[in-house]
Amino acid sequence: MGMWIGRNRKARVTYGFDEIALVPGRVTINPNELDITFRLPRKEAEPLELKIPILASAMDGVVDVRFAIAMSRLGGLAVLNLEGVQTRYKNPQEDLIAGRVRQIKDGGVLAAVSSIPQRAAEFGRIAQEAGADVFVVQSTVSTARHISSEYKSLDLGKFCREMRIPVIVGNTVGYDVTFEIMECGPAAVLVGVGPGAACTSRGVLGLGVPQVTATVDCAAARDAYFKKTSRYVPIITDGGMSRGGDVCKALACGADAVMVGSAFAKAQEAPGCGYHWGMATPHANLPRGTRIKVGTTGSLKQILFGPAEVDDGSQNLVGAITTCMGNVGARSIAEFQQTEIIIAPSIKTEGKLFQTVQSVGMGTS
Amino acid sequence: MGMWIGRNRKARVTYGFDEIALVPGRVTINPNELDITFRLPRKEAEPLELKIPILASAMDGVVDVRFAIAMSRLGGLAVLNLEGVQTRYKNPQEDLIAGRVRQIKDGGVLAAVSSIPQRAAEFGRIAQEAGADVFVVQSTVSTARHISSEYKSLDLGKFCREMRIPVIVGNTVGYDVTFEIMECGPAAVLVGVGPGAACTSRGVLGLGVPQVTATVDCAAARDAYFKKTSRYVPIITDGGMSRGGDVCKALACGADAVMVGSAFAKAQEAPGCGYHWGMATPHANLPRGTRIKVGTTGSLKQILFGPAEVDDGSQNLVGAITTCMGNVGARSIAEFQQTEIIIAPSIKTEGKLFQTVQSVGMGTS
Amino acid sequence: MGMWIGRNRKARVTYGFDEIALVPGRVTINPNELDITFRLPRKEAEPLELKIPILASAMDGVVDVRFAIAMSRLGGLAVLNLEGVQTRYKNPQEDLIAGRVRQIKDGGVLAAVSSIPQRAAEFGRIAQEAGADVFVVQSTVSTARHISSEYKSLDLGKFCREMRIPVIVGNTVGYDVTFEIMECGPAAVLVGVGPGAACTSRGVLGLGVPQVTATVDCAAARDAYFKKTSRYVPIITDGGMSRGGDVCKALACGADAVMVGSAFAKAQEAPGCGYHWGMATPHANLPRGTRIKVGTTGSLKQILFGPAEVDDGSQNLVGAITTCMGNVGARSIAEFQQTEIIIAPSIKTEGKLFQTVQSVGMGTS
Amino acid sequence: MGMWIGRNRKARVTYGFDEIALVPGRVTINPNELDITFRLPRKEAEPLELKIPILASAMDGVVDVRFAIAMSRLGGLAVLNLEGVQTRYKNPQEDLIAGRVRQIKDGGVLAAVSSIPQRAAEFGRIAQEAGADVFVVQSTVSTARHISSEYKSLDLGKFCREMRIPVIVGNTVGYDVTFEIMECGPAAVLVGVGPGAACTSRGVLGLGVPQVTATVDCAAARDAYFKKTSRYVPIITDGGMSRGGDVCKALACGADAVMVGSAFAKAQEAPGCGYHWGMATPHANLPRGTRIKVGTTGSLKQILFGPAEVDDGSQNLVGAITTCMGNVGARSIAEFQQTEIIIAPSIKTEGKLFQTVQSVGMGTS
Repeated sequence: MGMWIGRNRKARVTYGFDEIALVPGRVTINPNELDITFRLPRKEAEPLELKIPILASAMDGVVDVRFAIAMSRLGGLAVLNLEGVQTRYKNPQEDLIAGRVRQIKDGGVLAAVSSIPQRAAEFGRIAQEAGADVFVVQSTVSTARHISSEYKSLDLGKFCREMRIPVIVGNTVGYDVTFEIMECGPAAVLVGVGPGAACTSRGVLGLGVPQVTATVDCAAARDAYFKKTSRYVPIITDGGMSRGGDVCKALACGADAVMVGSAFAKAQEAPGCGYHWGMATPHANLPRGTRIKVGTTGSLKQILFGPAEVDDGSQNLVGAITTCMGNVGARSIAEFQQTEIIIAPSIKTEGKLFQTVQSVGMGTS
Repeated sequence: MGMWIGRNRKARVTYGFDEIALVPGRVTINPNELDITFRLPRKEAEPLELKIPILASAMDGVVDVRFAIAMSRLGGLAVLNLEGVQTRYKNPQEDLIAGRVRQIKDGGVLAAVSSIPQRAAEFGRIAQEAGADVFVVQSTVSTARHISSEYKSLDLGKFCREMRIPVIVGNTVGYDVTFEIMECGPAAVLVGVGPGAACTSRGVLGLGVPQVTATVDCAAARDAYFKKTSRYVPIITDGGMSRGGDVCKALACGADAVMVGSAFAKAQEAPGCGYHWGMATPHANLPRGTRIKVGTTGSLKQILFGPAEVDDGSQNLVGAITTCMGNVGARSIAEFQQTEIIIAPSIKTEGKLFQTVQSVGMGTS
Repeated sequence: MGMWIGRNRKARVTYGFDEIALVPGRVTINPNELDITFRLPRKEAEPLELKIPILASAMDGVVDVRFAIAMSRLGGLAVLNLEGVQTRYKNPQEDLIAGRVRQIKDGGVLAAVSSIPQRAAEFGRIAQEAGADVFVVQSTVSTARHISSEYKSLDLGKFCREMRIPVIVGNTVGYDVTFEIMECGPAAVLVGVGPGAACTSRGVLGLGVPQVTATVDCAAARDAYFKKTSRYVPIITDGGMSRGGDVCKALACGADAVMVGSAFAKAQEAPGCGYHWGMATPHANLPRGTRIKVGTTGSLKQILFGPAEVDDGSQNLVGAITTCMGNVGARSIAEFQQTEIIIAPSIKTEGKLFQTVQSVGMGTS
Repeated sequence: MGMWIGRNRKARVTYGFDEIALVPGRVTINPNELDITFRLPRKEAEPLELKIPILASAMDGVVDVRFAIAMSRLGGLAVLNLEGVQTRYKNPQEDLIAGRVRQIKDGGVLAAVSSIPQRAAEFGRIAQEAGADVFVVQSTVSTARHISSEYKSLDLGKFCREMRIPVIVGNTVGYDVTFEIMECGPAAVLVGVGPGAACTSRGVLGLGVPQVTATVDCAAARDAYFKKTSRYVPIITDGGMSRGGDVCKALACGADAVMVGSAFAKAQEAPGCGYHWGMATPHANLPRGTRIKVGTTGSLKQILFGPAEVDDGSQNLVGAITTCMGNVGARSIAEFQQTEIIIAPSIKTEGKLFQTVQSVGMGTS
């Protein structure tokens, strides 16, 4: 396994979404008769159930209170970034964080919020007490072990044990690291470091693993961890999916759900008003996110369920999932994860003709 | 066979037209002395013979009654889409379908019409009674088995048995699925799901198999089915061929004929008047085809037989087939299917110099 | 050897100039102390010696009498196309062909002329009698065997036997075909069918073999033929080389000389006046060459020997050869043919920074 | 090892920076607690220590006296080209060279100067006597052996023995050549011939080895030479790195330091004033460097240490190194050289969304 890149040194060949495609099945299924529920484990309680396996990224241009409520009502889950503009301009933070969580809860829906590891202990407690349903601890690269003499690292195992609500941890890639993080007790793991175009990690740091390989590796860790412990820790592929086809591929590679950012920045409900930008960091020296115009192309409902008014795959993500599952013959996400994958040359669609995705199999669609 | 795309998971490497090229033969043949006839099997009758192995896609911007007549007279076969605009605006459908079929038959030529599977039972009967020569059952992904509790699926085997005229079924990819469809009794099978630029399946659904691999796989199924049953079910590669070179490659990969869409949308006879669009679906939520300006570049005769006035390979498709066959030394499509194929880096022709395709071998051309 | 492109079918992986690079040697040599002579065998006479291993293509926009004289005086050889405009507008042909040959000979230099196979018997005799030094029989795909009942094919063996002057034959690719052609007795063989950007064969016909693989294969045939017969039939790689680097790669792959077209169309001496086009064919139905503006960038001397005023590698082709040979440590073309080749990702130079090719090795340049 | 590129001939597959990526580690480290010192061995003295493992290329548009002083003060080392404009316009050379060296030394910093091999003996002596700390002998392709009867080659072993200050030699690629050069006694070796976009060697000469493979190979030679002699000769990867990610990859591939050109041409301190060009050669016939506008994007301090005001990775190169090392869990360059490398499809970032590089691991950044 691996290619020689020079004398005495080998490297694995890895794959991203553009390099693969999914193969139609021997059986096709009516897309209206599929189960795409995502279940997030909870301590001493039934799992949280999302009707659709899609989360919205904790980004300022994507998720505010209003967006979070809309997303939850449509069956998904949006994560509010506690370090972003939504909680930045007021003091003390405790009031503001609790306030934002309560605003979401007032919408009668699930509330999910996030912070970087170094604030997780503090913010996690505040958010939980304010009624949050899910807490996300997120940094570019998460491992179960971090070495520093300058400051005290988050003890991930202790944090997961002490929190009553589910903790989602990320981002990570790689079998071993994912396995070790799962041993710390999170409810789910976010997969993806530097997944291509949506992130400068590859260009700025040279760091990153393409999402197909990252997802397959982490799914293997999840399955091995489940085999060992009987605890199923879902993995959520995060980043690099701008089209329905990418979402389908992530699930087929083994993801239990996906986390999407820029596709939702195009929603009328997105606070970015047609703009999208990365999470700013407090470290003044590190490169910051660029603000990009993505445009507002439709309502969140349209982006999730259609009708698609654009032909680039950025709308009707759920329709894409169910249509694809019908075509490959998968009744559930678990079956979808078994889809045959091929390595296929990238398609170049600029200036080319687009054609309709038609009916599935031999039945009435 | 296959590459590791991550831990515990392999994927086949697949190929499209841009990744391959054909190798000249040890012998060359005068292109005027070749047989390129396509034979479509019929029940208890001699096969239908097409002088050229080219069908026109069942697309509204390509085929209407006038185009179908012109195409048949030039030796090919055009398929009229019974769900498109040609039969949409009048009721009852029975009269309109029958009327269209009769109009084509009044041209003194073969009439071929198509529907999606869920309308095949009804429309097939009407078309056959009106005198159609060929019926095409076409959906994005066809399998011999479709699961639904919501509606009754088409019984493909029963349909093929009951129809007296040849039934062409598609689209499909993969050895096993193709073999199973052949067991249902069609006269021919359409090959191709999401073949690149002409279809959004890859982008929207992540679904699709590049046409070289799809054609090679289905040709293997055809040969295995023939070996088992002595019934030869031709395969027709459908989609992704915009140039003569692509058509040649499809045949060299094992296709008995090809189905072409956008190249014919450029014909003066095409009802799209220089525009091309995909087949609209009745499902309001699914993405629809985009209308693209392809321009009108010449007559259908010119597109099929030249003289080519453009240098991009979109005209004189038949000349391309015979010239290529002469150069590889193939006397028939069956011999052409044995051509040596190489994997070759894509050629980038933008802004580069084009040179003439000259004479063949050592003879006078 | 080969990759699976589908069930039961393999294909060789082939390479073009953009996919490879040459590796510097363990020893470097002063570029002024190298031998790059090309020797073309003659019957019962010493070989014709060209000081530089470069021929100019038989194209109307490149070679006329004046260009041919200039090219020969600079040490190369230009081939005048007897079917092009240089001999088209006057009758009888015999006078015109003989006239053109004599005009070149009046320049005191070698005269080389070409025709397609079907006119070779007639034109070859005329040209030889008029004093031509080399005759080139050229078609897109040449084999030793051509099948036709409609007309009489050229008997290549007989033609080579009867001509007193050296006959160069092409174009061809592939070990077996090249070996068979060599058995017919030509003085040299032209290598290359559809070598990428300079030819529409790949797009229009799907036909072609990238030049690296084509050259390596034909060099192997040449060496095997030499081993069997002790007759060394040089191979001349023709087409697809627009830069000095491509010329170097062709020689390193095993070519004894190269034939270049578009690079010479940029010469002040070229009759195309800054335009380049392919050879027109008499077959009205086949696609013809497009006329492309390449611009006039300098004198032929400058293109061959510099000083290069452009940085894209299209000038100082001979300087590129000797500098590269010095860097890889090759004293002769025969040693250059042994250079280590690597498969290297294409370089994209658009909008990027260009840097100077500096001195060679540890010596004074 | 290697792929068939044709009959009887194989070629290694090689890799450049765009084809690889680095994999996050199982452990992450606080980037503020890392050691990135580069040590250049000296004869009978402690090594020269650079706080950062970055050298500035000996190019006229990058390094003059003022830049060299600024670079040294920031912890790196800039090489002044003794054949460039800085010493060109005055005679005798001896005074001018000595003057430039003394000007740099007057800044209270290390002085490094370079020449081509044929002037090394003379210029090296002058520079050393004037107080230079490092001498660089640089040509496009360096080997331990150069053959010429026309002039006397530099005896590299003798030169290294006679110079008291450290001699850096380059450029080179390949295990064997590097090993042989190390046997001549240099303090360090520059790695890189034709590394892609920053050089025309690939286009003009067809010559070059992508930097990943070149660096891995030369690192293997360094390690083997160290194992044999217990003398550690650092390798400095030179060329083809325009972004922090490329610098990280070079170090991860085994480089001890990097030499960067165009990234520094963008500094306010660069003498090129926003323009960059290659080193002119005295050989009038060889292609010369093109002058390219790169723009002035910030101070040298900003380019090395940030804060980055651009998002393309061209600023805060040191921050990129330490952040990446923190993420892969490397405490030193020696540990960084052990990073897991993957082959990953190139990312295309044009017109795509950029996101912030965030904090490392579980700690406070």
